[in-house]
Amino acid sequence: MFAVKLMERIRKLNNPTAVGLDPDLSLVPQFCLRRTQSKAEAVLWFCRELIDHLHDIVPVVKCQSAFFEALGPEGALVLQETMEYARKKDMLVILDGKRNDIGSTAEAYAKAYLENDGYFCDALTVNPYLGYDGIQPFLDRCVRLGKGIFVLVKTSNPSSGDLQDVELKDGRLFYQHVAGLVETWAAAHRGPCGYGPMGAVLGATYPEILSELRLQMPATFFLVPGYGSQGGTPEDVARAFDRNGEGALVNASRSILRAWEKEGDSQERFALASRREAIRMRDAILHGLQRKETR
Amino acid sequence: MFAVKLMERIRKLNNPTAVGLDPDLSLVPQFCLRRTQSKAEAVLWFCRELIDHLHDIVPVVKCQSAFFEALGPEGALVLQETMEYARKKDMLVILDGKRNDIGSTAEAYAKAYLENDGYFCDALTVNPYLGYDGIQPFLDRCVRLGKGIFVLVKTSNPSSGDLQDVELKDGRLFYQHVAGLVETWAAAHRGPCGYGPMGAVLGATYPEILSELRLQMPATFFLVPGYGSQGGTPEDVARAFDRNGEGALVNASRSILRAWEKEGDSQERFALASRREAIRMRDAILHGLQRKETR
Repeated sequence: MFAVKLMERIRKLNNPTAVGLDPDLSLVPQFCLRRTQSKAEAVLWFCRELIDHLHDIVPVVKCQSAFFEALGPEGALVLQETMEYARKKDMLVILDGKRNDIGSTAEAYAKAYLENDGYFCDALTVNPYLGYDGIQPFLDRCVRLGKGIFVLVKTSNPSSGDLQDVELKDGRLFYQHVAGLVETWAAAHRGPCGYGPMGAVLGATYPEILSELRLQMPATFFLVPGYGSQGGTPEDVARAFDRNGEGALVNASRSILRAWEKEGDSQERFALASRREAIRMRDAILHGLQRKETR
Repeated sequence: MFAVKLMERIRKLNNPTAVGLDPDLSLVPQFCLRRTQSKAEAVLWFCRELIDHLHDIVPVVKCQSAFFEALGPEGALVLQETMEYARKKDMLVILDGKRNDIGSTAEAYAKAYLENDGYFCDALTVNPYLGYDGIQPFLDRCVRLGKGIFVLVKTSNPSSGDLQDVELKDGRLFYQHVAGLVETWAAAHRGPCGYGPMGAVLGATYPEILSELRLQMPATFFLVPGYGSQGGTPEDVARAFDRNGEGALVNASRSILRAWEKEGDSQERFALASRREAIRMRDAILHGLQRKETR
């Protein structure tokens, strides 16, 4: 079961965070570009180096598919190798691909990412715009193969309200409608641990929504991007966790990936900087959670 | 300009249809599987064979990314080669990837597919759930590089209403709100031909919505899936076209890809069957358009 694996791994490392691998070439240090022959090789080297220095403290890696796709077909190989490398180091792997389609096409995406046919990850992010037809093929594999999906509900970006905050006839906002659907789907597959294979993506930049939906979505695990660079604070993301301090995973990408910029462009400094930043993030979030409990 | 290229190509072949390459392995004939060494090679052979026999009668090919992704990293190479092959034969290429993200990640997708960095296509399908932040990076490249995007508005599947038909406070349905946004974005970049780089995906299975939105979205080119196998008829899709019989592209995938099943499993019959089915579809749609005009 995905939720059980995820919660065990978080408990073991006492760290409810994920590092987002968004390997934009502008984030790759010069020393790394110098010793590699191609962009694809540099990105693979960059991702492996980060995994090497984070796997014993960070339980989950979230690979951002777009940056691998931007490398062309070579990037697909780099993505596969990166995900395999992380899994070998006992990290859980979420592919942030925001895939969405219907019928046999959604089946093909589900096969590609959750059935080991193409790539091997533990969970995938999915966009809900097409309704349950676009969710079911993924959910079927989750239940059968112990994988997970995180469905977009309220995203962290400034214009997320263009669609997600539209007011409905019944007085709710659109994201609340989507949250209700996701919770219904999640509740149908809830396990003894309290959660199941169905999660939701909720941006850290809308903290009051995190509090609201934590109450209304008790069976849904939250994946919370937008911490750090995008503005989410430890107090903000503390709201995503349940009363046991569980049920949420906070992601940071840029703050960890570019930590080296402050320290200097060498292999040793790069590794130390990302590791130090990941520890700082873990401690800040655990501290935010403690303050929430004692309030 | 994408809209100009698309309209010229449709006029030249007198055919407002696209063939959808959804290379599910179950659709690949046995003779093709027998002469190839791997799934990826079979899919490439299948796609090339279809392009060879359709490029002089069908103006556009729509590649369904999921089926290439389901082949793993090899599939990425097959996708690139298929798109290149179609372009060399003068077909316009739409990648049906329904990509969506924000900020630097949306930039990475836009670079991957519209900037030639990773893959080379003429247009990409995009999911609007994240709002304008998730559209702008694509639209920027479209304007700058003569590419196009088709944004999901009302999809052809039975459960599309789960999100798209929710009633809003102002009495509209949610897809009508999205249609309004898309038309606003489209109108800002409308060219002298009446259309611009911004299109919408509207399923043939909701014909009354095609009529309604054709009136309300005069600057938006329509991509209409759901013809044939999913139930859309020539009369249904005729509603997607403007008063000049333009502004829409009808896609069929399965009906053309599996036409060979009725004729027999040999290279010659396979090619003839898909070509015959594509001609039948073209003639049926042109006939439907004529009937609409004379009503």
